[in-house]
Amino acid sequence: MTSVRRWLAVWALSCGAVAHADEGMWLLNQFPSSAVQAKYGFTPTQAWLDKVRLSSARLAGGCSASFVSAQGLVMTNHHCAHGCIEQLSTADKDYVKNGFWATRGEDEVRCPEMEVNQLTGIRDVTEELNAATRGLDGKAFNDALKAGMTRLEKACATAEDVRCDVVSLFQGGRYHLYTYRRFQDVRLVFAPEFAMAFFGGDPDNFMYPRYDLDLTFLRIYRGGKPVRMEHYFPWSPAGVREGELTFVSGHPGRTSRNLTVAELENLRDDGIPERLFRLSELRGMLAEFQKRGPEQARTSNSMLFGVENGLKALKGRREALVDAEFFATKVTAEKALRAKVAADPALQAQYGKAWDEVARAVAAGRNLRKPFGMLEGGQGFMSDYFNLARMLVRASAELPLPNEKRLREFTDAQLPQLKQQLFSTAPIHDEFEVALLTFSLTKLREVLGPDAQVVRQVLGTESPAAVAARRVAGASLKDVQARKALFEGGAAAVAASKDPFIQLALAVDPEARAVRRRYEDEVESVLKKNSELVSRARFAVQGTSSYPDATFTLRLSYGAVEGYAENGAHVAPLTTFAGAYKRHTGSDPFALPPRWLAAQQKLALDTPFNMATSNDIIGGNSGSPVINKDAQVVGLIFDGNIQSLGGDYGFDPAVNRAVAVHSAAVLEALDKVYGATRLLEELLGPAVPSRTR
Amino acid sequence: MTSVRRWLAVWALSCGAVAHADEGMWLLNQFPSSAVQAKYGFTPTQAWLDKVRLSSARLAGGCSASFVSAQGLVMTNHHCAHGCIEQLSTADKDYVKNGFWATRGEDEVRCPEMEVNQLTGIRDVTEELNAATRGLDGKAFNDALKAGMTRLEKACATAEDVRCDVVSLFQGGRYHLYTYRRFQDVRLVFAPEFAMAFFGGDPDNFMYPRYDLDLTFLRIYRGGKPVRMEHYFPWSPAGVREGELTFVSGHPGRTSRNLTVAELENLRDDGIPERLFRLSELRGMLAEFQKRGPEQARTSNSMLFGVENGLKALKGRREALVDAEFFATKVTAEKALRAKVAADPALQAQYGKAWDEVARAVAAGRNLRKPFGMLEGGQGFMSDYFNLARMLVRASAELPLPNEKRLREFTDAQLPQLKQQLFSTAPIHDEFEVALLTFSLTKLREVLGPDAQVVRQVLGTESPAAVAARRVAGASLKDVQARKALFEGGAAAVAASKDPFIQLALAVDPEARAVRRRYEDEVESVLKKNSELVSRARFAVQGTSSYPDATFTLRLSYGAVEGYAENGAHVAPLTTFAGAYKRHTGSDPFALPPRWLAAQQKLALDTPFNMATSNDIIGGNSGSPVINKDAQVVGLIFDGNIQSLGGDYGFDPAVNRAVAVHSAAVLEALDKVYGATRLLEELLGPAVPSRTR
Repeated sequence: MTSVRRWLAVWALSCGAVAHADEGMWLLNQFPSSAVQAKYGFTPTQAWLDKVRLSSARLAGGCSASFVSAQGLVMTNHHCAHGCIEQLSTADKDYVKNGFWATRGEDEVRCPEMEVNQLTGIRDVTEELNAATRGLDGKAFNDALKAGMTRLEKACATAEDVRCDVVSLFQGGRYHLYTYRRFQDVRLVFAPEFAMAFFGGDPDNFMYPRYDLDLTFLRIYRGGKPVRMEHYFPWSPAGVREGELTFVSGHPGRTSRNLTVAELENLRDDGIPERLFRLSELRGMLAEFQKRGPEQARTSNSMLFGVENGLKALKGRREALVDAEFFATKVTAEKALRAKVAADPALQAQYGKAWDEVARAVAAGRNLRKPFGMLEGGQGFMSDYFNLARMLVRASAELPLPNEKRLREFTDAQLPQLKQQLFSTAPIHDEFEVALLTFSLTKLREVLGPDAQVVRQVLGTESPAAVAARRVAGASLKDVQARKALFEGGAAAVAASKDPFIQLALAVDPEARAVRRRYEDEVESVLKKNSELVSRARFAVQGTSSYPDATFTLRLSYGAVEGYAENGAHVAPLTTFAGAYKRHTGSDPFALPPRWLAAQQKLALDTPFNMATSNDIIGGNSGSPVINKDAQVVGLIFDGNIQSLGGDYGFDPAVNRAVAVHSAAVLEALDKVYGATRLLEELLGPAVPSRTR
Repeated sequence: MTSVRRWLAVWALSCGAVAHADEGMWLLNQFPSSAVQAKYGFTPTQAWLDKVRLSSARLAGGCSASFVSAQGLVMTNHHCAHGCIEQLSTADKDYVKNGFWATRGEDEVRCPEMEVNQLTGIRDVTEELNAATRGLDGKAFNDALKAGMTRLEKACATAEDVRCDVVSLFQGGRYHLYTYRRFQDVRLVFAPEFAMAFFGGDPDNFMYPRYDLDLTFLRIYRGGKPVRMEHYFPWSPAGVREGELTFVSGHPGRTSRNLTVAELENLRDDGIPERLFRLSELRGMLAEFQKRGPEQARTSNSMLFGVENGLKALKGRREALVDAEFFATKVTAEKALRAKVAADPALQAQYGKAWDEVARAVAAGRNLRKPFGMLEGGQGFMSDYFNLARMLVRASAELPLPNEKRLREFTDAQLPQLKQQLFSTAPIHDEFEVALLTFSLTKLREVLGPDAQVVRQVLGTESPAAVAARRVAGASLKDVQARKALFEGGAAAVAASKDPFIQLALAVDPEARAVRRRYEDEVESVLKKNSELVSRARFAVQGTSSYPDATFTLRLSYGAVEGYAENGAHVAPLTTFAGAYKRHTGSDPFALPPRWLAAQQKLALDTPFNMATSNDIIGGNSGSPVINKDAQVVGLIFDGNIQSLGGDYGFDPAVNRAVAVHSAAVLEALDKVYGATRLLEELLGPAVPSRTR
């Protein structure tokens, strides 16, 4: 990853408070339209921005998407729907391997755990929450803030299909209340073969040039019928060419561009390496588990994908942070900001101590990382049964409490999502459960030590493998009705349950809650309070015209279809179908699916396949539409290049590139490979197949 | 590992050029006897030191040992002989699981790949080698140095049983020629059950208190008979108590206490994390491979042990390096040394540029790390077949060359070791070969990229798994005679071979040699030359009274049986058998073997089992004898505590502890658990069983 290091060096030279050309994950209610006008000669109006917002979609599980027809058709990535496609598959009908295409509307199948959100409103609630926390510190601050957020969300979420989230922006410098329409009946319409969606596999992941049809179409339903959408992105008949202006409207998950040096050091030295050790081990285990047989391979496929994808992304982030030159720019920038604060007595009195307080909270968090990750963060109990059991155990304890006193994930506004997870019909694979639980219980013992009380409680005199096998063999929670009975029966039913996972979740809950409480009181509360102060100090010194770090809320970035230089050579921004056939070896992950081999003669091989654009994106943007200035779909984001992996900490316009499926490739493939006429007509109108490319 | 961080902070406060009390891995020809006298009232004489040297032993594969009888009995750790014990086992006779005890001499079985060394002489050859390299730089320097070393070794190694190694001490500040007696007929005499040798397994590894009988007895033979030893360590009848003086005579493998800041930064940011990622993934793979069945578990057991042991040790080292306070002491010390050099024009002219040159070489090395590790370092081809094939391919090319022109591992002085490896009768397990080769070929593709020429050459259009399966299925090198034929047939036989691993090794050899050459010319040569200069600058400023970094050559450390403080509590230095029974749960790795459960009533449960001493040791010291001032065996080093893992970079006398089996535990176990009377008599004389404890 020399290239990551190179761009960081470049970036470091020009680093400052002002965003670069094309850098930025902008809020839709604070978009730099004049900057776009100055560079590209187009001014996004508020009406244009509103249309974009309402045509954009979010998958609540962690991806972006868009509405692409009046009949509720939703476009996202295959890798965003991979979990659903795997859940809907069986040993006999493997939609991951073979793809899925509902030739008729009635063949569209519901995803058990999918939720789609449409952002209908944004309200600034900073003043209300600041009023609630004024003068408070530590636990009192945190409790008041959470209660305030819960109150605002409850008042806003007037129906099951209204989702309301208070979003902390600028590290708490601003709080916005986001209102969404919530769609939980989401059905699978079309998915290509995994081998085509992820052609090149892990070796080509984050690489460019690429040849992936990382695409899935879903559809939102209500009352058994497709939802009529007033707003959606129409398909561009012309597609897009090199140099053209592109917007990406999506939900970048998390960036760390405004973290303090103490927080970045902690990520560099502890947080990221420890995650990488754990993911590496899990990857080795999963890859070997897949060799047990085809069914084991099928059922662990999406987890392996997620682990490998996460590993590669995190390694890129680590590379960025250990670049001494880059890190020094962060240190210098913080010193400069603190010096300006210190030079003004009023600012110093208000904000001067905030950085040290953040550092103190970071140190406290580091001491809690291991027990928190193991007991509360899920690392010690990797099991669907355990997750369900914990939800049931905690729901039975939390729901009787007043709304504002509950753990945040059990407040009234969160119940629709909780219920969807709890009553999901997604299959649970016992052999995989045993393997994952064995792995994670072994880590629990390793990390907390064999003499820790909670470890003795969980393992007794047994080995992790024996505990896992015994509990999975006795599990009753595969039955959705059993879960419903426990949910409705409340604390009494839970206490009386003989289910081994309910009993396990009950047994570890006191210690898990205790470590969570310590984390919230000693770390989270101090971080929130003081990150807010750092953020306000930054506003005071640098103004408020920048964009906040990503928070898995809607952002708009602008850029263009654009190549870049790598090792002295120019990387062209567009690939073609021909390139995919050239890269085909016949062996996974470089094996084109049979349908594609058969269609080769029919396809226009010079059709643009993938493209690189200079939009500023990051994980969570997967599934984002690429649109032109007419708000038409010209592409579908599915990746960033390897140089963009340090984008968590800074953006280099010279080489950071978003990677997308070109809109023309979607049409050509639907037509010539899949014969998906119904879908083509929906995207383009009935004029198909005389469409232009 | 908060404790590692704590001691580093302590250490940092008192860090300097002078060694601490009890710190030091001292050369036997430069031992600080007066310091021992001052603290412990005992002066090791030269005669005493010579006796210790000649009674000490090294396992050439990477461990320490000692001679403990006049009949060539060798004591080392179980984990040092684990490979041999596994190689001698079969599915029916599992000596790893059940232990091994040769009741008669003729039942002692030869280890296929074991070599024992006895250090018979040390000669300073610094001047001779300095003369050979005077005025040279880069490749010329390195070539001259290696040729000089090869010449010295060849002249010294007058027979197959004389082993001669030029050792670079003080990072090249001194060169010593070490002469050893070489013993290659090494037979297994006694090994306990793995469950007792490694009681507590990975969770308890590097932890204290401990309860492990990590012990194996071997015997050296010549001409079919045990070798009569003039020098050996007799067994202490009294054992050792808390506070008593202890010496450890052994072969610490590698420390990095004198590396430059650039080298330490590279280890911290690149070298160690990347090794940890790889080992973590391998661990996940191996743990899951073990679940394929008992035979797969048996044949992968020692590798899993090695990987887990390495992971835990490396994680401790990483913890030390990311401790900012500790690292700052390294930076400060280097700055101070450089300032003193800069202040003296003569020193500055000689040494002033050396640190920057080291940094340059480190940067060059970082760029070569991936291809070097994959192609030359064995990471891309984890396979016994491949290793054998590469040895044969290279031997056929190197042996016809003049001795001084050969790759160092093919010089005449190295041939006995090469032949032992090449003609080893150790079993090769094909299923494990396929799994490891699949794993490593996948990494080869991942790290070098699917488009690298060598990757395309190795994989063609196949997957790593298919390549591995095909080549292993066709392998012919399991047959030792086939290897002999290829070795004797030379280049012609190798070129004509149809063996798939010979062909693979031939195919990748040009690229592997090319990256090795680049590494040697651009990195190694610059590092050697300039590390030498840094070392000489240190001599010039600080004198030459310290000890060199560890180099897997004989060192003597002194200390005492001593507890330490941890989390505010005192950890006592001695454990007893009773503690082991208390820790027994019945589940691996806390399950005592059946023989031990049966013997519980017979054992004196207050017998000291393990002990902590303040000796300064590190990996490679495993198997070292702990001796008293009478040069009697009082223990057997097998581990360090978790606090000692940062010992690669510095030693803290307050909490760094060596961990050993107490000599009394060995006697009691041999007597009451194993009834190994023949062995007891050999250790103690025929007075057994009336021996004292």
